[in-house]
Amino acid sequence: MNTHEFQVRGMSCGHCEAAVRGELEQVPGVETIEVSAQTGKLLVTTSQSVPDAAILAAVDEAGYQAARVR
Amino acid sequence: MNTHEFQVRGMSCGHCEAAVRGELEQVPGVETIEVSAQTGKLLVTTSQSVPDAAILAAVDEAGYQAARVR
Repeated sequence: MNTHEFQVRGMSCGHCEAAVRGELEQVPGVETIEVSAQTGKLLVTTSQSVPDAAILAAVDEAGYQAARVR
Repeated sequence: MNTHEFQVRGMSCGHCEAAVRGELEQVPGVETIEVSAQTGKLLVTTSQSVPDAAILAAVDEAGYQAARVR
């Protein structure tokens, strides 16, 4: 299990969270997703090695930009 | 053609606008919808007599509250 933490810019509401979540659910290997529009924090756990680029691409697809925190 | 103007509270982004629009599109008689998350302004034109209550109910269904302006 790998944990990826990102800071996402520009989310303002639950719809934004749902958009990010919806794109991430389509990324193979993604197991759990915690996302908060209020803090911008995005926590993704993956069952296998998933490149950050795949997660960032999904966030981008949802219309937001993210940066890796740790 | 009747014009209804409302002030909607709580919208923050394009997803919110889309949610309001999506519900209003299902109201019989609604012809055009202009909605802005930035200003909260909602302008609905209808081809027939549509009660405000039907519009307010659709906005409520989307998760927001509105008040008639004029």
